[in-house]
Formats: sequence, C-alpha cells, structure tokens
Amino acid sequence: MDKFLIKGDLAWSGCDRVIVSRKDAYILVEDGLVSGVFDRRPEGEYEFYDYGGHLVVPGMTDLHLHAPQYQFAGLYMDEELLQWLEKHTFPIEAEYRDVEYAEKAYGIFTEDLKNSCTTRAVVFATVHRDSTLLLMDMMEASGLISYVGKVNMDRNCPDSLREKTDESIRETLAYIDESRRFSRTKPIITPRFIPSCTDGLMEVLGRIAYEGNIPVQSHLDENLGEIGWVSELCPWSRNYADAYDRFGMMGRVKTVMAHVVWPSEEEIVLLRRPGVFVAHSPSSNINLASGIAPVRRFIDEGIGCGLATDVAGGSSLSMFRMITDAIQASKLRWRLVDDKLGALGFDEAFYLATRGGGSFFGKVGAFEPGFEADILVLDESGARSVLRERMDVRDRLEFYAYRLADERPLAKFVRGERII
Amino acid sequence: MDKFLIKGDLAWSGCDRVIVSRKDAYILVEDGLVSGVFDRRPEGEYEFYDYGGHLVVPGMTDLHLHAPQYQFAGLYMDEELLQWLEKHTFPIEAEYRDVEYAEKAYGIFTEDLKNSCTTRAVVFATVHRDSTLLLMDMMEASGLISYVGKVNMDRNCPDSLREKTDESIRETLAYIDESRRFSRTKPIITPRFIPSCTDGLMEVLGRIAYEGNIPVQSHLDENLGEIGWVSELCPWSRNYADAYDRFGMMGRVKTVMAHVVWPSEEEIVLLRRPGVFVAHSPSSNINLASGIAPVRRFIDEGIGCGLATDVAGGSSLSMFRMITDAIQASKLRWRLVDDKLGALGFDEAFYLATRGGGSFFGKVGAFEPGFEADILVLDESGARSVLRERMDVRDRLEFYAYRLADERPLAKFVRGERII
Repeated sequence: MDKFLIKGDLAWSGCDRVIVSRKDAYILVEDGLVSGVFDRRPEGEYEFYDYGGHLVVPGMTDLHLHAPQYQFAGLYMDEELLQWLEKHTFPIEAEYRDVEYAEKAYGIFTEDLKNSCTTRAVVFATVHRDSTLLLMDMMEASGLISYVGKVNMDRNCPDSLREKTDESIRETLAYIDESRRFSRTKPIITPRFIPSCTDGLMEVLGRIAYEGNIPVQSHLDENLGEIGWVSELCPWSRNYADAYDRFGMMGRVKTVMAHVVWPSEEEIVLLRRPGVFVAHSPSSNINLASGIAPVRRFIDEGIGCGLATDVAGGSSLSMFRMITDAIQASKLRWRLVDDKLGALGFDEAFYLATRGGGSFFGKVGAFEPGFEADILVLDESGARSVLRERMDVRDRLEFYAYRLADERPLAKFVRGERII
Repeated sequence: MDKFLIKGDLAWSGCDRVIVSRKDAYILVEDGLVSGVFDRRPEGEYEFYDYGGHLVVPGMTDLHLHAPQYQFAGLYMDEELLQWLEKHTFPIEAEYRDVEYAEKAYGIFTEDLKNSCTTRAVVFATVHRDSTLLLMDMMEASGLISYVGKVNMDRNCPDSLREKTDESIRETLAYIDESRRFSRTKPIITPRFIPSCTDGLMEVLGRIAYEGNIPVQSHLDENLGEIGWVSELCPWSRNYADAYDRFGMMGRVKTVMAHVVWPSEEEIVLLRRPGVFVAHSPSSNINLASGIAPVRRFIDEGIGCGLATDVAGGSSLSMFRMITDAIQASKLRWRLVDDKLGALGFDEAFYLATRGGGSFFGKVGAFEPGFEADILVLDESGARSVLRERMDVRDRLEFYAYRLADERPLAKFVRGERII
C-alpha cells in the first residue's frame, strides 16, 4: 500500500532549527512523501502503524563516511591523520581489490548501517571499481538511500592503491555507467583529497561531474599539516578551497566537503555558495587531534551543513552520538578557543543531523508536507528514570541521544519504505 | 569455594602504565586475592571458570559520581555548572528527603551500576541521612565495593537542601555510626564544595575525618566562575586547594578531589601529597563546558589519579566510555591549549580506569599477586570485523572500548565474589 499513517510522539526540527514536538500525533505518508501531520486521526484508507507512546523522529543523514574503514573503526586511535593514513588506512583499503574480501567487509558495514538511525549516507568506497559496485549493490538492497563514491588517487599513496591518471578516469566513467542500474544508490565524484590527485586528474573529474551533473565529495581543511602540504602542492591556489574551486568542485555541482576544521576567511566566502555542504565530523576531528570546526559560524553564515561519523576517523556509526559529540566539541571550542562563538544547543545539533544534512538529498529530515518520509521509531526502554513521567517529548529526545545512541530503532522507514 | 581459576585472554595495566596481555592464560584467586597468573593450567583444587577466547580485564573504579543525579543523566545538558546546579540539580536532590522516592531512584542506580564495568565507586548521595543509608544498603546488597557520602551543605543552596551547621554535624556522626553495619560500603566525609559549607562546618568535618580516619571527597577547580567565588568566600586562603587544606582535607586523611580542571602551580604542590587523588571526569568537564584537566601532568608529577563518570555532569556510567573520553579530551587539550603536554594514549587511560583509580581502594585494578580480585569478562560479539582474527589482545581491548563501552560484562567478580 502506498499510503500509511504512523501514530507516535513526534519531534522534528523546524526551519528555524528549533525542535517541534507533537505528543500522540499522526504522520500521513503518501507515495513516499509526508502529506500531513495531525493531532487527530484523519479519515481515509491507509495502513496504520500504532507507535503510540514511542518517540518518532526523522531519519538521519550521515554526510561523510568511509565504508572500507568500518572494519577498524575504534582501532589505531593513538595516531594523527597523515600517519594514520599511511600506517593503517591505506594498507587496509588496498585489500578491497579482492572482491571476496570486500563482500565480507561490506556485508558487515551495510548491515550495521541499516540497523542504525541513518537513512541517508554519502559514502567513500575505495579506488576499486568492482568492489565499489558491489558495495552499491549491497546499499541498494539495504533500502538505504546513498551516494557511493569510487575513490580517485593518482599520487602520494602506496603503489598498491595508486592509479594511473588515464586508468582512474576510465574506471570512473565505467563506474558511473554501471551504477545507472541502481535507483537508491547514486554515483558521486570522489577525489580523495588534493594531495592524492594530480591537477590533470582533477581537471577531468571536474568536467565529468559538471557534464553529468554528478555531485562531488572530498576533504577540506582537516589538519594543519595537510593544509600546509596542499599549499606546497598547489602553489597556484589562494587556499585549499580555491584549489578545489579551480576544478569546479566548490558548488558548480552539488558538493560536500568533510571536516573544514580550519577555514580561512576567504574560504568561508566559497563555502557560502549554494550547493556547497560541510560535513561536520566532530568525533573524527577529535580522535585524529585535528581540532574543532567552527560549526556555529557555518550555521550563522547560512552555509550548508550536516553531521558525519567519518568512520573510521570516527569510531561510531551512530548519528545520535554525533549529535552529542558535536555539542560537546562546540562547548570546548567556546571555552578554550573562541568565546565569541557560542556552543551548539541540543536543538541545533539535532537539526544538523536531520534537516541540515538531509537537505543534501532534497526535502529530507523533517515532518512537513512534501518532505520525503524518512522516519525512525525509537525504543526508549533501555534507559530507566523515575523522572520519565515528567519529561516532555523534547526532554525524552535529549535523554535518548545521550543515553541510548547505539540502540537499534524499533522501526525505520526510508522514503516511505519500511526497512526495519 | 574460596579458590577459583579463570581462563581467558588477559589484559591489565603494569605499574609502568603499559598494557600487559596474556592470551589463553589463567588467573588463580584465593580468598578474594589474585594469587598468580599462569600460562598453563596450574595443579590443585579449585572451581574453574573457562572463559577461553574472551577478554578478561580488571574491574574498574569510578572515583566520583552522584547517585541521586543518575535519574537525569543525559538531560539539561545545555547549561553551565552553576546554573545547572541551581535550576535542575538542587531541586531534584531535594526530593531525596522522601525515602520512598529515594528507594525507586537508587534501585535503578544500583542495578545499572552493578551491570556496568565498575567494581568500585566513590559516591556522593544527598544531605539526607535516611536515604543515604538506604543507598548504602542497596550498594552493599549489589556486591559492589564503595564509599558513599552523606553530603554536607550549610550555605549557598536552596532552603530545601540547606542544613543548620549543628544539624549537619549531628547527622554526619549518626550516618557514620549507622554505617558500621556494612562490610563493603564505607562512609566518606563529603562537604559538597567550599561554596556550600561554612568554615565552622568544614572545621568540624575535618576533625571528624581525622579522628575516625575516614576519607574525604569533594570538588576542586572545576569551573572558573566557581574558583572566583571560592576566593571571595575564603579571602584567607591562598587558593582553592589551600582552603581545603586548612581543614585537613588535602591528604591528612585519604582525599579524592573531583575535576581539578584549572590547578595553579601552588595547588599542584598540594596535590602531590600521598593520599590525595584526582578524579578526572572528562565527560562531565566537557558537558558543563568546564574545560580539560591537565591529566598528563598529574601522571607525570606522580599525583594519584583515576577516572570518574561524575554522573550527572557525565551522562554515562560506562568507565570504558570514560577511557575514550579521557583520550579524546587530552588530544584536544594538546592541539588547542598546550602542545607541550602530550595526549593520553590508550594504555594510559586504561591504567587510570583500573590501577590508577583502584589504588584509592588499596591493591586494586591489576592481575598481580596480592591484588584484590576484581575481574571482568567481556562480550565482544557486538562489534563484528573481518580484521578480528588479526587483532592481538590489546587491539581487541581498544576496539571494545571504542565500540562496546555500554555492554554488560559476561561475568563480574568483586574481591573474588561473583556478582554477574
């Protein structure tokens, strides 16, 4: 049936980033879209899911994560970015040339992601076309909606991962072509970051993105050492973001840049462009000792922004964990770095995880008419409290985020299709 | 039987704070103490627990937490310390005058703590004698070993919590007297912090502690506003720690001070005294935007130090979560505040959670002969990885800490008694 009604205690983020809540209310979904929210049960013919008494919130968007790294999420955490890439990340990513290995590893990844609160994701795979397409197959079957990028790297990486420039282009075109068979899973142009792609490769990738109107994802301003390296590699650029912009990768097509921990004033101007999104990855930025992004500034400047686990810089697939990590990181930034930039409140961080990141996918992440129906029903039974009766819907949501971030949702709908 | 043997993959922290691991090894326990660790099964008569293939680590010590606040752990996180106390914490603590309420709330607390990886705890209750003794009853029954403090407050708090000075002293003596009936649960002198206790009360509490050789717990240098307030309240003191010292509460008896985020050089000298411990509470210090304690310095200076959840400044009872929070906080401090003070590695944070905090209780927190047998058997099945076969015992422990911090242990022994 293409029409259904869900009853529950609803909470979502309004366009002013304040949480709206409706106790014992109803969401009507038609053809994958929210058609209305009601305080009384509406008339009509539909399937009915009664989750009365349960929290019901929008699905969450993970704007940046590395599927092949999930196998070591939570390991090797005593290293900084560039050492961590060289010693652990690159050697393990090289193993995904073996499709059998990839099948096992991606099987675990997609199953765990399906069981999380994420409904949409923007994913890095590896340089390998076959195993990237295999991951896309699995993501498609999971019911999740995602962009999955075959990574491009033609310099500054081990031989086991380095592509020849021509080969990288050819494989990218073939991957785009073969991915036409998916409906929920889309290709995305994925130069790993400036240090691992030659200017010649970037030039062609930018053209492919533009001509096919395919979005772009990469990394920007994660680590001070990395930023210095980029200025050496691209002496012609004014800054790191400008280096991407030169190749049409700062908003000419829809663009998501992970991290942006250390943006300059000039870069802020480029980030303000429509179609540019920052994937704020607080957990990863802390684990790799990169720093704390000025996410409050991104919000105030109207820059597109969402949250990201950045597995395996981040160790958790939980977007609720990212909500509390983003708040905590912003508090420390306020206290220790810049007391003019206030900390994030819970409402704002919840906004980023739902509506903020969701807008990369269109009208996603809220219970308003016309929004795609990504819906989570939450199980609050794991955290007991004598105060529960006194908590309002918003309190219960905050309590859930801090106490039950790793729980599997009771039910999960993606664009109106139930997958849990 | 008073003698038993456990088989498993053992890991503990050596006295050099480096993790020692022994795969497929055995711990022999006699009369509650570790009598030896063996690579081959020893001869003799004993009960045998075969946890072959499972991680087996020492029980953890939570050096500071507030039992009455557990009911709102994870709520009201958008506030700073002094506002948070006034708006939420004090009104809720006042409700513990009602013993029926306390019974429900402490029932949830002790059950959840029993199911965590904590085997020892140093706990704040409230000002109320009856409900504090009730909490001690429940802690005793849980099998955990703890200090539980009746809080003292005779100024700067709502009428509903403020004691008269004489009453505070009388109730404290009665609580100490009545708590003689417990064997695992001990009293501890608990002035909330300088701002909430008059000099007259502190004087007597210091004497009671000294004469009864009862340890002391309180809060020190948590928040800059609080520190300023203390210097106004105690114009005769050189600094906050000195204010405690004047009353014999900096090591004259065993002393644990929570937080110590902003110690001065003069205070470091007092903290170095034998018998003084810092309860490092990274999660709470972040949630309340207090700052990041220089815990690497405490270690380097030989200051007694362990980890603490500080529920409900911290939202989690998980000591594994405190391990990763301590590492993450120290990385940000290194990156953003003081690059001369290196970040904590996993081994050091694990040390703090086990052997470091455990030493407040004596020989606790390691698998060495003569140590009290606090033992956890961990269930790693919740985090799958194709790399699992390649992980050594230490890798598995790091992976567990980041990925499964909230799991209930498979088995838990406290001073040789099995409680899970």
